[in-house]
Amino acid sequence: MIKAGVVGGTGYTGVELLRLLAQHPQVELAAITSRAEAGTRVADMFPSLRRRVDLCFSDPASARLDECDVVFFATPNGIAMQQAPALLDAGVRVIDLAADYRITDIAEWEKWYGMRHASPECVERAVYGLPEINRAAIAGARLVANPGCYPTAVQLGLAPLVEAGVVELGSLIADAKSGVSGAGRKAEVSSLFAEASDNFKAYGVAGHRHLPEIRQGLSRLAQKPVGLTFVPHLTPLIRGIHATLYARVAREADFQALFEQRYAGEAFVDVLPPGSHPETRSVRAANLCRIAVHRPQGGDTLVVLSVIDNLVKGAAGQAVQNMNIMFGLPETDSLWQLPVLP
Amino acid sequence: MIKAGVVGGTGYTGVELLRLLAQHPQVELAAITSRAEAGTRVADMFPSLRRRVDLCFSDPASARLDECDVVFFATPNGIAMQQAPALLDAGVRVIDLAADYRITDIAEWEKWYGMRHASPECVERAVYGLPEINRAAIAGARLVANPGCYPTAVQLGLAPLVEAGVVELGSLIADAKSGVSGAGRKAEVSSLFAEASDNFKAYGVAGHRHLPEIRQGLSRLAQKPVGLTFVPHLTPLIRGIHATLYARVAREADFQALFEQRYAGEAFVDVLPPGSHPETRSVRAANLCRIAVHRPQGGDTLVVLSVIDNLVKGAAGQAVQNMNIMFGLPETDSLWQLPVLP
Amino acid sequence: MIKAGVVGGTGYTGVELLRLLAQHPQVELAAITSRAEAGTRVADMFPSLRRRVDLCFSDPASARLDECDVVFFATPNGIAMQQAPALLDAGVRVIDLAADYRITDIAEWEKWYGMRHASPECVERAVYGLPEINRAAIAGARLVANPGCYPTAVQLGLAPLVEAGVVELGSLIADAKSGVSGAGRKAEVSSLFAEASDNFKAYGVAGHRHLPEIRQGLSRLAQKPVGLTFVPHLTPLIRGIHATLYARVAREADFQALFEQRYAGEAFVDVLPPGSHPETRSVRAANLCRIAVHRPQGGDTLVVLSVIDNLVKGAAGQAVQNMNIMFGLPETDSLWQLPVLP
Amino acid sequence: MIKAGVVGGTGYTGVELLRLLAQHPQVELAAITSRAEAGTRVADMFPSLRRRVDLCFSDPASARLDECDVVFFATPNGIAMQQAPALLDAGVRVIDLAADYRITDIAEWEKWYGMRHASPECVERAVYGLPEINRAAIAGARLVANPGCYPTAVQLGLAPLVEAGVVELGSLIADAKSGVSGAGRKAEVSSLFAEASDNFKAYGVAGHRHLPEIRQGLSRLAQKPVGLTFVPHLTPLIRGIHATLYARVAREADFQALFEQRYAGEAFVDVLPPGSHPETRSVRAANLCRIAVHRPQGGDTLVVLSVIDNLVKGAAGQAVQNMNIMFGLPETDSLWQLPVLP
Repeated sequence: MIKAGVVGGTGYTGVELLRLLAQHPQVELAAITSRAEAGTRVADMFPSLRRRVDLCFSDPASARLDECDVVFFATPNGIAMQQAPALLDAGVRVIDLAADYRITDIAEWEKWYGMRHASPECVERAVYGLPEINRAAIAGARLVANPGCYPTAVQLGLAPLVEAGVVELGSLIADAKSGVSGAGRKAEVSSLFAEASDNFKAYGVAGHRHLPEIRQGLSRLAQKPVGLTFVPHLTPLIRGIHATLYARVAREADFQALFEQRYAGEAFVDVLPPGSHPETRSVRAANLCRIAVHRPQGGDTLVVLSVIDNLVKGAAGQAVQNMNIMFGLPETDSLWQLPVLP
Repeated sequence: MIKAGVVGGTGYTGVELLRLLAQHPQVELAAITSRAEAGTRVADMFPSLRRRVDLCFSDPASARLDECDVVFFATPNGIAMQQAPALLDAGVRVIDLAADYRITDIAEWEKWYGMRHASPECVERAVYGLPEINRAAIAGARLVANPGCYPTAVQLGLAPLVEAGVVELGSLIADAKSGVSGAGRKAEVSSLFAEASDNFKAYGVAGHRHLPEIRQGLSRLAQKPVGLTFVPHLTPLIRGIHATLYARVAREADFQALFEQRYAGEAFVDVLPPGSHPETRSVRAANLCRIAVHRPQGGDTLVVLSVIDNLVKGAAGQAVQNMNIMFGLPETDSLWQLPVLP
Repeated sequence: MIKAGVVGGTGYTGVELLRLLAQHPQVELAAITSRAEAGTRVADMFPSLRRRVDLCFSDPASARLDECDVVFFATPNGIAMQQAPALLDAGVRVIDLAADYRITDIAEWEKWYGMRHASPECVERAVYGLPEINRAAIAGARLVANPGCYPTAVQLGLAPLVEAGVVELGSLIADAKSGVSGAGRKAEVSSLFAEASDNFKAYGVAGHRHLPEIRQGLSRLAQKPVGLTFVPHLTPLIRGIHATLYARVAREADFQALFEQRYAGEAFVDVLPPGSHPETRSVRAANLCRIAVHRPQGGDTLVVLSVIDNLVKGAAGQAVQNMNIMFGLPETDSLWQLPVLP
Repeated sequence: MIKAGVVGGTGYTGVELLRLLAQHPQVELAAITSRAEAGTRVADMFPSLRRRVDLCFSDPASARLDECDVVFFATPNGIAMQQAPALLDAGVRVIDLAADYRITDIAEWEKWYGMRHASPECVERAVYGLPEINRAAIAGARLVANPGCYPTAVQLGLAPLVEAGVVELGSLIADAKSGVSGAGRKAEVSSLFAEASDNFKAYGVAGHRHLPEIRQGLSRLAQKPVGLTFVPHLTPLIRGIHATLYARVAREADFQALFEQRYAGEAFVDVLPPGSHPETRSVRAANLCRIAVHRPQGGDTLVVLSVIDNLVKGAAGQAVQNMNIMFGLPETDSLWQLPVLP
């Protein structure tokens, strides 16, 4: 059994990680830390876990995370970068669900995240944990930077086109819509039911932290810089991201076949038949990305539709997928549950 | 492997049953019938099942349901009563998720359901499938009448009090609230998003079909007739029932202990600590009933709060639980998934 | 024109009050105060008011509220009781939308609200502002205690029965369901979209602050103490309260006629025909209470269904109605807008 | 008083029109027709209109629509084109809220709407009723084609750029999100609460009927053909459209000023300050379009955000605005109500 620790299990990413780890056949949940909630039974905070997760939150100071095989950081940005180095030194594998190790350009990271990086020397050792693009490197990684939710949906949706070099790289557009759980379990007025329900809005049009992450990922695939306009929106879902992606055709190709071949054999990416419109609920609570590619009226603009559950394939599920790869387990362990519909 | 057939898999109860059966370690899905959708791939109708359920809906006439070990009816009322007798004769076990075999008084059934009963001779052979009350009979049953959603939440919430004879039986009140999936996957104006969202209403106050079913169940437990006022409401949830139950104290007792003892050892009924308020989302997508018992201001009126997912413990999950019992399988097979929260 | 001031206009009650006052033909909005938001343009916080409300929030210290004809307190509990006396001394009429002056028994108030009352001498001068019950007194009032949202729905629903003495007064039950705006515009985890959406729960079963207020109001009508079990629930609506009220028949009467006669001539109470089920959306954004009375299966238990918009008839609309009465204006001024459906 | 008739008042556009007309100071509602509901009281179908709209639906055959001053068609496509000619001959002004007279190219219309046009001779007499673009022509019109909901949001959002010739016209993109009321009050599975709630999806990517309408409108403004990719999405709102519009800069300009000048003096178009993100709820139930223009990271791509209430500025409100213009009334009559927030 793999001994797993979770740092910061009180947010939505944390409770989803607990849900998946508690059902994992090869994992023993060893510790869950939370400074604010030390001593509280996990199941008192999340009644969905009653009678199944019998741990209390423990104080980060006293938890023996260094005795774990793997530690997940489900913390705000800026925590993992302080604590991961010691764990790595102790031989513990680390998966950071926050953004600390996602951007390799330290200055860029510091600009977008507004703080000094505490362990820049670890950044280059970190592997970007998007398995469908980076599986081999993940298998050998000690430190995985788990991708952001928008970056997962957008990169999986554009990767086949960018890798094949069949679209113009200077004017990609990602119009993305996220459920409200993406804002986290923080007490903020803008996330209140009475604010976010029956309401739709864009936000961060001037610049969102996931923009440099997506740009970095696509530029690697293209092996040259890409230009991207990224507009995130808030939509009244609990879970789900729908990315609508626009790209100008640069070279003719069988785009449907391109996607099908690129993701053939992938357990967690499902390319839909031509003419399809994937729904966010078709991946609800499951580690899946469903994709459809369109070319409206046979014009120059391709439209790719890509959906994920932001808490699963966009966060906790992908983290477990990465763990499975790192430990040589079947990639689908604990991730094979069917979506919940309706 | 148990060969299972599903008659009428195109509604919400049907797709939920498919979700659970497809993940059951001991079940092989042999046939799913639908007259209207014969030939359609199940996964084309329900994209959540893509790549996991590879069947097409088959015509009821040609499906070899008599070769199944068990057949589930996820049909409108009035279908099972016509088809079950032949299947039973062929040695097939039958679980009816509709109401055909729930009421033992045929005249009463015909009054509430507005049709003649086609197989009244089977009614007395049918076992009412509420395992926490009726487990032994279910184990030996050939024909199980799976309870309604409201009746499950209400009976589990009142059973300890009624069995122990500690409340007045003449004036029980069940104020129940249901998510909209309870109305089924029928194209009706009243179930439209623009009608049911951001809206709350009671319905059927004059009389709802689940009233005689609940009354019959509670009267059996009390071994005398009970008086019940039952008011169902529609609330903007997809899934979930919350029953708020009111009973006057007839005899003092430790009510909390009464509930805890009654459900000790039950895998799917969770009695919460004193002072709790169970939420419907704490059982979302799981085969669970969570219950809390209150005595406000130490007065004469007990308040019991009981929540289930109407599609799982209130329908498909309970049907699988019944199947597990009928076939001697572990009762939790395929029903051990954690609730999805948030 | 009536010069109106609003203290604490940053919550949902406040913005709703601004919406109504800004459209009132006889009112000039003179000042809106907020310590936290002093200097902020009201329309920057509430974009729905852009180009129509041109005020900034002003500091409570510098606002000349004593020059207003009427001041509304849309503040948390405990503010009006400190500031109202000086305004009253200055000849300003005061309408408190919070609870400071609702309960005449000071000790009872202090127990439920957990603070010392700062102006107990004003409590007996305060008039409870439920116009359909108290209109004459409101007309002459200098200080009005605007009722709570639940108390409005429950009292209007039970008043005809209690006044007529036709139901048992010892065992009334109010099972009430509220939209999430009732919890206010406070940043609290429990009111987040991802917590409150697709979820239903009871809360405060052991005792809610509106219980003594309702009990006081009904006891006045009955001219003797009443016994009430009050269970509030949170339902995924932005606006709306649905009260389901249960009462045992003590004396036979034509209950439908009783309600129709009691509210004949009332502009804001609508008694529905027999067999009706009022929906919360049928009063959305309007100053209305719609009521239906049922006697299921001709039994001993009456069921009354009563719906309001908690922010309008349950708060800001009722406050404007009270103002209209106090100033001798047509009671429907600014309150005659039709509900928004769908 | 203007005598107004409504043909087909049983859908969401119809009830919204009734709400606005019933509150219009210069309008007398003379007749509302519905074949299916003839004889039903309007307020029995729409309880929000109880005690305020006292009409019954009348049979289209017997209603004396030719005695009205204006008749609104709130019907499915294909009805107005049959009935409008006779009314026009009788001197009645006609406003069609459906699509019959929106597209001037008859062949194009017949292709997208899948039927023969019954009164092609009227098409060229019809005035496209987008007041902010076409006000003078509307003032003199006998027959107004009220724009579609998406076309309103998209055209108002792009008009300043297209008229000024500052963007590339060949590659405009409109990524639009609509609430579910846009699908109408039709009993369809895809519009059920349990399907559309907590779900997000694109639809009609291959081609939506509003595409030719938008293209026609923008091409007129540009005085040359424009190329447009239009992707509509369904989002879990009752009301609201959010259009996110992408255009490549062709010529430098002060884009903020361009918008502000273009809509200066418009009562129903509100250009927000730089950096704003309009929310759909900020126009809920109001005849408003709010717009913000962005240029992310100072790049080549402009992003315009445009929100309306699809039932008001996108349908019934715009129809009343057109009526006001046609009859020389103040344009804001009955349209000056503040949005409902929250």
